[in-house]
Amino acid sequence: MSPQEALSDLDGFTIEVPSWAYGNSGTRFKVFTTPGTPRDPFEKIADAARVHALTGLAPRVSLHVPWDRVEDFGRLRAHAEELGVRIGGINSNLFQDDDYRLGSLTHVDPRVRAKAVAHHLDCVDVMRATGSTDLKLWLPDGTNYAGQDSLRGRQDRLAGSLREIYAALDPEHRLLVEYKFFEPYFYTMDIPDWGTALLHCQALGERAQVVLDTGHHAPGTNIEFIVVQLLRAGRLGAFDFNSRFYADDDLIVGSADPFQLFRIMVEIVAQGAHRPGSGVNFMLDQCHNIEDKIAGQVRSVLNVEQALAKALLVDTAALTAAQEEGDVIGAHDVLMDAFHTDVRGALADRREARGLPRDPMAAYRASGYAAKIAAERVGGTQAGWS
Amino acid sequence: MSPQEALSDLDGFTIEVPSWAYGNSGTRFKVFTTPGTPRDPFEKIADAARVHALTGLAPRVSLHVPWDRVEDFGRLRAHAEELGVRIGGINSNLFQDDDYRLGSLTHVDPRVRAKAVAHHLDCVDVMRATGSTDLKLWLPDGTNYAGQDSLRGRQDRLAGSLREIYAALDPEHRLLVEYKFFEPYFYTMDIPDWGTALLHCQALGERAQVVLDTGHHAPGTNIEFIVVQLLRAGRLGAFDFNSRFYADDDLIVGSADPFQLFRIMVEIVAQGAHRPGSGVNFMLDQCHNIEDKIAGQVRSVLNVEQALAKALLVDTAALTAAQEEGDVIGAHDVLMDAFHTDVRGALADRREARGLPRDPMAAYRASGYAAKIAAERVGGTQAGWS
Amino acid sequence: MSPQEALSDLDGFTIEVPSWAYGNSGTRFKVFTTPGTPRDPFEKIADAARVHALTGLAPRVSLHVPWDRVEDFGRLRAHAEELGVRIGGINSNLFQDDDYRLGSLTHVDPRVRAKAVAHHLDCVDVMRATGSTDLKLWLPDGTNYAGQDSLRGRQDRLAGSLREIYAALDPEHRLLVEYKFFEPYFYTMDIPDWGTALLHCQALGERAQVVLDTGHHAPGTNIEFIVVQLLRAGRLGAFDFNSRFYADDDLIVGSADPFQLFRIMVEIVAQGAHRPGSGVNFMLDQCHNIEDKIAGQVRSVLNVEQALAKALLVDTAALTAAQEEGDVIGAHDVLMDAFHTDVRGALADRREARGLPRDPMAAYRASGYAAKIAAERVGGTQAGWS
Amino acid sequence: MSPQEALSDLDGFTIEVPSWAYGNSGTRFKVFTTPGTPRDPFEKIADAARVHALTGLAPRVSLHVPWDRVEDFGRLRAHAEELGVRIGGINSNLFQDDDYRLGSLTHVDPRVRAKAVAHHLDCVDVMRATGSTDLKLWLPDGTNYAGQDSLRGRQDRLAGSLREIYAALDPEHRLLVEYKFFEPYFYTMDIPDWGTALLHCQALGERAQVVLDTGHHAPGTNIEFIVVQLLRAGRLGAFDFNSRFYADDDLIVGSADPFQLFRIMVEIVAQGAHRPGSGVNFMLDQCHNIEDKIAGQVRSVLNVEQALAKALLVDTAALTAAQEEGDVIGAHDVLMDAFHTDVRGALADRREARGLPRDPMAAYRASGYAAKIAAERVGGTQAGWS
Repeated sequence: MSPQEALSDLDGFTIEVPSWAYGNSGTRFKVFTTPGTPRDPFEKIADAARVHALTGLAPRVSLHVPWDRVEDFGRLRAHAEELGVRIGGINSNLFQDDDYRLGSLTHVDPRVRAKAVAHHLDCVDVMRATGSTDLKLWLPDGTNYAGQDSLRGRQDRLAGSLREIYAALDPEHRLLVEYKFFEPYFYTMDIPDWGTALLHCQALGERAQVVLDTGHHAPGTNIEFIVVQLLRAGRLGAFDFNSRFYADDDLIVGSADPFQLFRIMVEIVAQGAHRPGSGVNFMLDQCHNIEDKIAGQVRSVLNVEQALAKALLVDTAALTAAQEEGDVIGAHDVLMDAFHTDVRGALADRREARGLPRDPMAAYRASGYAAKIAAERVGGTQAGWS
Repeated sequence: MSPQEALSDLDGFTIEVPSWAYGNSGTRFKVFTTPGTPRDPFEKIADAARVHALTGLAPRVSLHVPWDRVEDFGRLRAHAEELGVRIGGINSNLFQDDDYRLGSLTHVDPRVRAKAVAHHLDCVDVMRATGSTDLKLWLPDGTNYAGQDSLRGRQDRLAGSLREIYAALDPEHRLLVEYKFFEPYFYTMDIPDWGTALLHCQALGERAQVVLDTGHHAPGTNIEFIVVQLLRAGRLGAFDFNSRFYADDDLIVGSADPFQLFRIMVEIVAQGAHRPGSGVNFMLDQCHNIEDKIAGQVRSVLNVEQALAKALLVDTAALTAAQEEGDVIGAHDVLMDAFHTDVRGALADRREARGLPRDPMAAYRASGYAAKIAAERVGGTQAGWS
Repeated sequence: MSPQEALSDLDGFTIEVPSWAYGNSGTRFKVFTTPGTPRDPFEKIADAARVHALTGLAPRVSLHVPWDRVEDFGRLRAHAEELGVRIGGINSNLFQDDDYRLGSLTHVDPRVRAKAVAHHLDCVDVMRATGSTDLKLWLPDGTNYAGQDSLRGRQDRLAGSLREIYAALDPEHRLLVEYKFFEPYFYTMDIPDWGTALLHCQALGERAQVVLDTGHHAPGTNIEFIVVQLLRAGRLGAFDFNSRFYADDDLIVGSADPFQLFRIMVEIVAQGAHRPGSGVNFMLDQCHNIEDKIAGQVRSVLNVEQALAKALLVDTAALTAAQEEGDVIGAHDVLMDAFHTDVRGALADRREARGLPRDPMAAYRASGYAAKIAAERVGGTQAGWS
Repeated sequence: MSPQEALSDLDGFTIEVPSWAYGNSGTRFKVFTTPGTPRDPFEKIADAARVHALTGLAPRVSLHVPWDRVEDFGRLRAHAEELGVRIGGINSNLFQDDDYRLGSLTHVDPRVRAKAVAHHLDCVDVMRATGSTDLKLWLPDGTNYAGQDSLRGRQDRLAGSLREIYAALDPEHRLLVEYKFFEPYFYTMDIPDWGTALLHCQALGERAQVVLDTGHHAPGTNIEFIVVQLLRAGRLGAFDFNSRFYADDDLIVGSADPFQLFRIMVEIVAQGAHRPGSGVNFMLDQCHNIEDKIAGQVRSVLNVEQALAKALLVDTAALTAAQEEGDVIGAHDVLMDAFHTDVRGALADRREARGLPRDPMAAYRASGYAAKIAAERVGGTQAGWS
């Protein structure tokens, strides 16, 4: 198979971008702002559509409720479609209500749990209005001190809450359950690892699937191994891509460890999960704390595409042969050959052939879009995590 | 409930000690030796029986095949019983055969996999001869380099191998599957986490259970949370207790983080799993690289007992009340009250009442046993990891 | 030496509390509020004084500039002294100005660096007005992406900025330089470790000292070892005490790993650094995100006292003897004997003898203070990180 | 500057290979063997010379005492020079003597310390006999249990031992002091971090320099930052290159995180430390546990060369311009442009121009050398860590 043929497998591959990446974000110490930051969901979608126009890779935008709440979601959907993109997953929010200080779906108080469940039913309505099929639930619940709450009790209450949410889904809907190692709680998180997420999904049913956020693991965790496990179990629903050096840093995907991203994509390709029918939704979840947001998103989708392209170039026949011979270095070298190959020219050719800019980063800089929105978006309140 | 009543729940609690803890062990850099180290399984069991005689806590000894292979396992069993202990779990060995360089139960070559499976059938025979009911399988397989082997292929082959082993068990036998984060392979382990172990156990059947070794996790992992999950899933078969600061250090349990050991025991008590009928086997797996081995084992079983005693002293009514009120510090303080309580006197009283030495460490030092075995065990080859 | 005699070494020991612990804090996801939270530095100091009144352990309050800026620092000082406490270290703030997005003392732009230096000169004025002698500088500077800035250039610029600040100190002032492993930047921090802090202090002069925050290290770091090194080098200026499970969690000191806190105190005692003349300032730096703040501070100072008390009980003659004999377990057991000793009664006796409540936590709960400030402090803006 | 010009800076760059990489190594669980493994230092040097002949990059071989002890070191030196290489650093061994169970240079017993010091004087004699100028000291000392020994006492004793060793050096000799985070001891290492190594080097004098082993850090540590610090302090004496995913895995350099290796080389180039006069010795320290050893070494030196080549291609003018503009993504992209460039063809051209094989890995496979040594080296004892 020629490289061109191998890369043709990129044709159906898409990445979903998060609306909140276009708003301001930061650390507990400071949220810096940038000129031109969107003030509302319509402007966020406009920026996201710009990323898709430049790259051809990002035709969907995830929404966050309540950050992206609008009066008329049908109008938001139409706005997106006019700009050439559509609404992707709906993300719920369980971390900004004063009631949730000690938990939401796990809270000891049934009233609080009911409120958290009801929020998801509201999200399901947004799904219906926007045509979204993925309800994404990141559970921020946890505890800070040993003894603070019953770990077992919280699991049981969580299971009950999830059952109610799952029951409210339409048949074409999926529930995507995300896990996270730590933060915003430090002693325990209630879904800290893929094993816990999987157990809850198994208890719910087949349309409950696990979300793997690449920044949500303990140090040293082999993430591509988890990809393999979740695919083997038929439960990998989605990625939240980003980069991290230490914690949930939410940096541009591929910026901290491009070889890790490549290895993840190698396992994806090995099980055919990069293809549209696989059911795996490739999403970004990033925080552009100090860098330009739109450029950051363009760079991100290009990094994912580049990693996938390299993964597609792996000579699988040679790899399998070396593996079967027990040729450790030979097999490793087959993989590294693909990684060391510079695919940027080939990807530029593909873009050009599709009527896209060869260099989307340069095209973005040359477009004047950043200056335009900085000039236009004056007044109002810049969007952020609220 | 008075403290005495609370501590009465210790009555049925036992700890299983590993035969190999009495032999030499070390790091890849050096295995230091000590005078009096056993030369054969009979001497190992004699030392283990000494630990039980001093503490009343350790009535079972795990064996390792082939390290503890003897011509007549019936005789070994009788030897143990004469000394007041019995044979516990049988541990297989998949890491010392040249054939296993690239894997054992996961190896790409069916011949090697068959050999590794056959070794377990041999272990089942040892179980029958010794009356053991637990077959413990730690899978040391993994890879060192990306691309070295197919991660998915290895899982599939592992699943097949495990099915063959499980099928060979008698109805009263359990298969205990252990996971480990890293070492002796560094890029991947084939069972690196509890999620993977659980998936394989689920595929096998109810008598396949997970072993939690307290040193086999990524940094920062909340181990008591995993205890809760595995108990909730009905799959916690056993512990391998030890301490670690960084990697799989195999230090004396309770020496690195006694509060963590206490928290683990709190969750055990919360679900009643410290009681004999729970099916959880509390085992040690340690390496006394530089310290006296028998004293190290005595210290270890006392540390586990102490942690459990403190866990039993938790005022659960006060704890639950504080948790239900959302009193974070109050609930934490209830737990800490138990932890800060000095239970050593109460435990000494209990020992005395049972005809055991109040201070087993001092009794061991005073016994002259160390000098005796150093004098007697001259010649031959000291036992170690072979 | 009797336990009472050993504990008499607690007499001169004090802990400095941070004004900001009494205000609201949180994660990037949410800052929860509590009724009665102070609205200004005067109210913060009132709460801090309450902690001292209950415990007798916390006679100093650290201020943060600009969070604690008042028109008349002399009046604030007098207010503190009337309430029985005094002003401790002055903490600068380099992380909340838009100019500092890419750095402060390290910024490539001399104007920004000059601004950051000038802020410290302002802090020196506050020191003069409040009688403070410690200028504490935590450098939040760093980068998120490889290539973003010159790592060497940033060190050189930092050295220059620090020289200017150090030159502005009065002879009785110290500069306390804090290091932090990660956050709020993720690729590099400009002072990530004690080695870097020490090099800068060495370049400045003897009154530049290192601050050790117990939450600012990589996983698995042996913190008491760093204590030993900094004391040996004569450069341990202060602690920022708190607890962490994974990152800079800023939990109540002693809540995550009480044995680690004890080990730190053992090394402090071994070099006599708990005594007033040692020059080591024992400070707290915590965030009571979800728990009661004043109770959290009371608990914290009691935990530090308890750990120090246990450290003072170590039988150093027995310890040294066991160490010199190479008795590994014996020496460890000497340490553990002290750790397992329940000192709470003895500490209550000491408090009672000094006219303090035996149980400061209970006394605080019984005092009605929380209800009183919740009723009084209505209106205005609760203090937080701004 | 054209790429060819940039790459011309590779001309003087060399890598030192360790004799022990050609012998057997493994984990505490198993040391696997390979046919053709050298039986003595002469055969090790023959293999090392082969790596140099294939790559032109590895003209020096580190020796280890006592593993490489021969009767006549002059003959070994001549053997090396006949094969086109020479003797590099001399590595001492403080971890395999029974006397060192509780320490060597730090041991509480002066007799043991004197023995450990004397071993280094012996190494200095080997340096004189072989023309080596680097005495490399990795201190494996540490403790496993809190309380086991006095941390402060061990530092003081270490300082004394190092003074004696340093005093024995000839004026042209350097003492290279290596640090390591953990292993073979788990509670403390006596030189666990670069700060400790630096303090001891500062106390000794200018010819005491720090060795940075890329596998000897806590998780998440930014290694290139330490490179910058040590260069800035004038104390970076050498690298021990290898790869790790979790602990001191000693895998092939560049196999786990090629981007990290590139970033290290970027900082090296930024301070000109890749050039022969810099005093930085670029060494490998690896364990080919399961892979072919000679191929592993060839791959390793090529990986280092490749990373350096990419670092030399960084457009420093563009990088500095973007940094000065505060263009975060722009500056990062300049770095990534170099990283993503495929330099393998250019490096093959350079090799060809120097009379070397374009593809050293293929040339090695085609050479029949592996079969030849497997056939010749029959009988005797394969070299390993003894």
